[in-house]
Amino acid sequence: MHSPTITGFEIVDLRFPTSEEAHGSDAVHVDPDYSAAYVILKTDSARAGATGISYEGHGLTFTIGRGNEIVCQAIRSLMPLVEGKSVDAIRRDRRAFWRALSQDSQFRWLGPEKGVMALAVAAIVNAVWDLEARVAGKPLWRLLADMPAEELVAAMDFHGIRDAVDEAACLAMLRANDATRAERITRVEREGFPAYTTSCGWIGYSDDTIRARCREALADGFTHFKMKIGQSIDDDVRRARIIREEIGAKNTLMVDANQRFDVQQAIQWIKPLAPFNIWWFEEPVSPDDVLGHAEIARAIQPIRVATGEQCQNRVMFKQFLASGGMQICQLDSCRVGGVNDNLAIMALARRFGVPVCPHAGGVGLCEFVAHLIMVDYIRFNPTMDGRVCEFVDHLHEHFVDPCIVKGGRYLAPTKPGYSGEVKRASLAAFAFPDGPEWVKRRNTRNINGVAR
Amino acid sequence: MHSPTITGFEIVDLRFPTSEEAHGSDAVHVDPDYSAAYVILKTDSARAGATGISYEGHGLTFTIGRGNEIVCQAIRSLMPLVEGKSVDAIRRDRRAFWRALSQDSQFRWLGPEKGVMALAVAAIVNAVWDLEARVAGKPLWRLLADMPAEELVAAMDFHGIRDAVDEAACLAMLRANDATRAERITRVEREGFPAYTTSCGWIGYSDDTIRARCREALADGFTHFKMKIGQSIDDDVRRARIIREEIGAKNTLMVDANQRFDVQQAIQWIKPLAPFNIWWFEEPVSPDDVLGHAEIARAIQPIRVATGEQCQNRVMFKQFLASGGMQICQLDSCRVGGVNDNLAIMALARRFGVPVCPHAGGVGLCEFVAHLIMVDYIRFNPTMDGRVCEFVDHLHEHFVDPCIVKGGRYLAPTKPGYSGEVKRASLAAFAFPDGPEWVKRRNTRNINGVAR
Repeated sequence: MHSPTITGFEIVDLRFPTSEEAHGSDAVHVDPDYSAAYVILKTDSARAGATGISYEGHGLTFTIGRGNEIVCQAIRSLMPLVEGKSVDAIRRDRRAFWRALSQDSQFRWLGPEKGVMALAVAAIVNAVWDLEARVAGKPLWRLLADMPAEELVAAMDFHGIRDAVDEAACLAMLRANDATRAERITRVEREGFPAYTTSCGWIGYSDDTIRARCREALADGFTHFKMKIGQSIDDDVRRARIIREEIGAKNTLMVDANQRFDVQQAIQWIKPLAPFNIWWFEEPVSPDDVLGHAEIARAIQPIRVATGEQCQNRVMFKQFLASGGMQICQLDSCRVGGVNDNLAIMALARRFGVPVCPHAGGVGLCEFVAHLIMVDYIRFNPTMDGRVCEFVDHLHEHFVDPCIVKGGRYLAPTKPGYSGEVKRASLAAFAFPDGPEWVKRRNTRNINGVAR
Repeated sequence: MHSPTITGFEIVDLRFPTSEEAHGSDAVHVDPDYSAAYVILKTDSARAGATGISYEGHGLTFTIGRGNEIVCQAIRSLMPLVEGKSVDAIRRDRRAFWRALSQDSQFRWLGPEKGVMALAVAAIVNAVWDLEARVAGKPLWRLLADMPAEELVAAMDFHGIRDAVDEAACLAMLRANDATRAERITRVEREGFPAYTTSCGWIGYSDDTIRARCREALADGFTHFKMKIGQSIDDDVRRARIIREEIGAKNTLMVDANQRFDVQQAIQWIKPLAPFNIWWFEEPVSPDDVLGHAEIARAIQPIRVATGEQCQNRVMFKQFLASGGMQICQLDSCRVGGVNDNLAIMALARRFGVPVCPHAGGVGLCEFVAHLIMVDYIRFNPTMDGRVCEFVDHLHEHFVDPCIVKGGRYLAPTKPGYSGEVKRASLAAFAFPDGPEWVKRRNTRNINGVAR
């Protein structure tokens, strides 16, 4: 197989002024400007002639504005560990490559495996998998669906989770699923995977907007709806009532507090919302509070506790899953160190029997999870029952290969790569702070992008 | 009281080439170049005339080389939240100022309160406390020792830990200690606080170096000694034997694995070392693994499990302390978001009855903990029994007001401020990559400071 070498890179600080319309607003993140620290890996075979496929790797990590430049700096700082590597060399020992980035003997002090560094590693690792999938001529989900079990295990890092799942246990898990793997590949190509929508439930929306968004979503075939809570209990009850009126009793409602509460406060807050039949309560408290989540889960059953979008790495996921504090596993494509760590997280979810319902939205997260949810279903957790993958209908127009959600389901991506490539025109227009979309806002926003 | 306004800042990427002599080497951090992301807060009264005290604030956070530039970028990005603030404005609501930095609605996505962002917040917050203490004309420990209990509580953030310690519980705790506070102030001024040494136990040292360092430390009055373990069990046993031979049966030995192991591996590794009478086993596994630490603690008693230097914030400390996974609380002056979060951590240690034995070494950590350990003893945990504070005798010559350790004890600092100021000549010489000490190494080290 062709094996281009990574010879250079380009980083873009990409920001969309979404705070102007309250898209994505919640009780804690009141003014997000959806952003991405974006990296393009250049290779020595940038044009692949007849195939028309450009052998670049495109990756990104999602942020919400200020600080995106810090993640861009972290990507730049990590690139000496990537430049000069060939796709073959990376493919030969994917775990070693991943560990070189996430456990470098000096960089690791800045984490390890969390925060800015994990986000930066994710952008790079996602770009490398995009490049490998392009070279293979397959969408990433299919590359991983077709990969021999031993090779998949060899891409994962079990350090810190061997007391829950080690190499042998993971291999056994994958092999047990292999017999029916082909059926599941066929099924996702035919039916896709169930999605849910968060587009109705942002805190900043008016009643009319909520109703309009609910009706649109119902017409689009959605059956699962999520709303943001946590600024005012009266307002939360009022909005829950509106959404229930719109979606009826048969459809499913979830709520999300985005880490707003202390433990006891969370347990109290959910009580007046319980009559609206809540499936899950998402991020009730600090995303670091394993034991707090477990306590809340015990107190509010049968409502389930969901978390994961800010869970930092497989070691944290292990504890959340083992303790009962994470009853819905909301892995994120960009928060942990990219694809490799997410494979370990899927194995952990399987080990503890917890449904994986990925976090998405933001910039590019829906494009990525369209691949990850297929991999999880085909290789690790072979059921669609009781599982849905988040979908938010914003910003997809900027992507070369946007995710497709039809009839309330994610369709399986078909183009080679990992679908994170942003259109050249969008990269130029929304580059911060000197792209034309930001230059024209200089009168109303300061250098950090904050409204004056 | 005088209230200067912060009008500007200077950031220095300060790195010492310590990897050349294996100072600080351990099983995981094999080649640290001790570094600091250093910030100077400039004010509108940079010269205070007759007092001779410069009204600047000096703060830093410690790293081990590569990536120090990322933390410098994070400090730069946060500075718009600091510039223009007066000392009075910060003093009026210290909690609000701290939360503005650690919970900014957009920056928080990059953490929250962990990794690069927590390190950067620490550098800034430490500089602000340095400035406030200079203005007050007191060493920081004394400023905090003298502060009314209500004011101390008002400087702390209880979000996420109220299920363990809330504002009222903390106030009661402080008030209970107030009756004997003056005695403890007198005592630390007379006796200082017990220290232990890690200078004998770095993995890269030869037998002769180990013996020489042990003898020096004994002559200096130390009674507690820590060694690094985790590269080879045979080598660890051999070095434990050498150190025990040198320090005798009466003195105390601790071991530190710097996160090297998985849970079961840690439990096995310590067995052949147990006959050397080990007080504590430090960082056996991932610093994120609360439940793993608790399992190890149950398995290896009476050896205690110690951790904290890479514990990210008060919510993680809460869980470690509550679960029994942290039997020695090794808070770090620069890992969490600076002084304010460390006050909350001291309150949590008191709540769960766990001794605080701070982490130090690196660059400036000893200078900072000389203050923090006094504050903890005077305000939160009023005993010296069974407690020691880490000391490593490297790099102190670069500080304007270096910590003083005599007879195996940290003396109470006497100069106004927080003692983190590095000499101008050192800042110039070791600035990376263009300071003369790095320019002359360009033939032997590459752009990232790595030996060729």
